[in-house]
Amino acid sequence: MSPTIELCKQLIERQSVTPNDAGCFPLILDRLENFDITVTRLDCEDVENILITIGDEGPLLIFLGHTDVVPTGPESEWRYPPFEPTEEGDLLFGRGTADMKGSIAAFITATERFLASKPMMKARFGILLTSDEEGAADYGIRYVAPELQRRGIDIDYCLVGEPSSTNKLGDVIKNGRRGSLGATLKVIGKQGHVAYPQLADNPIHKAMQALSDLVATEWDQGNDFFPPTSFQISNINSGTGATNVIPGDMEVVCNFRYSTETTAEELKARVEAVLTRAELNYDITWKLNGEPFLTAEGELVEACVQSVEEITGRSPNLSTSGGTSDGRFIAPLGAQVVELGPLNATIHQVNENVSMSDLNQLSEVYEAIIRRLMT
Amino acid sequence: MSPTIELCKQLIERQSVTPNDAGCFPLILDRLENFDITVTRLDCEDVENILITIGDEGPLLIFLGHTDVVPTGPESEWRYPPFEPTEEGDLLFGRGTADMKGSIAAFITATERFLASKPMMKARFGILLTSDEEGAADYGIRYVAPELQRRGIDIDYCLVGEPSSTNKLGDVIKNGRRGSLGATLKVIGKQGHVAYPQLADNPIHKAMQALSDLVATEWDQGNDFFPPTSFQISNINSGTGATNVIPGDMEVVCNFRYSTETTAEELKARVEAVLTRAELNYDITWKLNGEPFLTAEGELVEACVQSVEEITGRSPNLSTSGGTSDGRFIAPLGAQVVELGPLNATIHQVNENVSMSDLNQLSEVYEAIIRRLMT
Repeated sequence: MSPTIELCKQLIERQSVTPNDAGCFPLILDRLENFDITVTRLDCEDVENILITIGDEGPLLIFLGHTDVVPTGPESEWRYPPFEPTEEGDLLFGRGTADMKGSIAAFITATERFLASKPMMKARFGILLTSDEEGAADYGIRYVAPELQRRGIDIDYCLVGEPSSTNKLGDVIKNGRRGSLGATLKVIGKQGHVAYPQLADNPIHKAMQALSDLVATEWDQGNDFFPPTSFQISNINSGTGATNVIPGDMEVVCNFRYSTETTAEELKARVEAVLTRAELNYDITWKLNGEPFLTAEGELVEACVQSVEEITGRSPNLSTSGGTSDGRFIAPLGAQVVELGPLNATIHQVNENVSMSDLNQLSEVYEAIIRRLMT
Repeated sequence: MSPTIELCKQLIERQSVTPNDAGCFPLILDRLENFDITVTRLDCEDVENILITIGDEGPLLIFLGHTDVVPTGPESEWRYPPFEPTEEGDLLFGRGTADMKGSIAAFITATERFLASKPMMKARFGILLTSDEEGAADYGIRYVAPELQRRGIDIDYCLVGEPSSTNKLGDVIKNGRRGSLGATLKVIGKQGHVAYPQLADNPIHKAMQALSDLVATEWDQGNDFFPPTSFQISNINSGTGATNVIPGDMEVVCNFRYSTETTAEELKARVEAVLTRAELNYDITWKLNGEPFLTAEGELVEACVQSVEEITGRSPNLSTSGGTSDGRFIAPLGAQVVELGPLNATIHQVNENVSMSDLNQLSEVYEAIIRRLMT
């Protein structure tokens, strides 16, 4: 068994359901204790965070990851127990194999091989881990990023180990992410009996055309780096449960994933204009989950593309699609940020799995990236 | 204290929260035991039903009522304990004073006075009571009506004691009711991550235009007897609770109150045409709560109008507006059906109350109706 697969299995066995680390950090520290490392704990509330760095001077490359995993879902639907890593052909099954303990294992073994070669280093590198990326995530990297800034620790390159690949290992590198803007809309009407609609004010009826307009709106057309901004209603709830009562209010939860062609302020203004035009009595609460960010080019993108090509023979596509990651907290610090990891086909699902040959190759890719940026 | 108010208070003291009679029937039977009455019990499951008739031959007039009341709501908001009938000026407070123990008391005292006058009767009359009109009501008059038909008991005139008056006693007589047709619509989409809307199928988005169309539809314009058919969405629910998940389905509960210008079948067809045109993947379950009914004219309407005019000096309006009543189960048997009772301003609310002078007048109105139809 390769050291990467062995370490991955040890990590899977630790039941680190978010926001728990469940002993993954100590395991990783054990692996690196023979090297000259600097360890900075950045725990906050019930979340564990750790920064491990190697080297004395020069630009800093950080591998960013999380040891927590999403809950298993119904265990009876798993082919194998989710915390007992099990091989089936080239596939390794277990919760966190793809998201993202496999990437962590690959990076640790890449580090071991690189350092074992006793390289002359012109830069520094290391690993930044949190035990809460999948949960509320308020005390993970959201907390750590400004804390690093306060402590004068500047990250130059941030390689996020999230599963970015779609069909083949390395076919997609994420070099940015759309912004994420959430809203909770409360439309206020007046409760009454369905038999006397003239005495009530049905918030569902009142809001329907405005919501229909929002759903049909083209917000922008995207650009070379970003797909068009998308708007999705994720929750809509109104009603007393009784069939003969017109409800007094309605709650609608929606979310924008937005490109750099617009801004959170512009989107808010456009939505509120539609609601006001419809003469709704409403409250809206906005939550900016993350501004869009983009690493259009630079040493990190170059090192990643070249390393994928060297090890896999594939030319990766750069993409900004998909969900947010903790990279959104590091990008505002001025770092170049990319995401590169295994296939994301089974993440957050039952029977999550990863290709073991992919993981071994990923470790080689990570080693090549480290080598390019460190030497 | 008038016999009507005294009996009303005794009925209020019995805490007959739906579907309980709590001893109201025995109290009423006590009042009538000196007369030559025929008693038919029609209990079903946990619901008590009773028919009391007087007379030997000729058309049958039935006073239809219910002894159950809706729950009190927060007792701390009541000015007086809801089951301790309390006078304040001309008002009598208590749960059920208006809906509809006051009407029952008025009918019983009307019966007593009428029979005490030893009239020559050319027809029969009586009272039909249930302990479940306000609740699920599956075993109340919904059960009783076909059961009476099976037993060969034909009702010619049905006077429902529901509080029909709006501003002054007797200003409104309900001579029909709109139909009530309910539907539960399930729109089926495909769950997914809000960041990847192209891989999901948002049922909220998909259905929004169709729902908007349904809300904006003019179903008919009503007619001389009925207001236009109205459509109301009472409940709409979709969403996993998570803000970043596109839900897999949406449930919409809606209700028609419809005139005799359309039919349940036509409404169903029109709704389903809109849903199909929108290319929705959906399931819809219909529930016909009651067909519309109308007693445009006839001996009962005439007797009611003339009696209100005689006793109150007012000319009542005939109306089919408002909610359903148990009259909907009697009308299909071929009976003339009207609703005539006290003011409905406080029904189902805290501090339900009735004017005591209204109740005394109502008893006189009922007596005049009985006299007109019986002699």
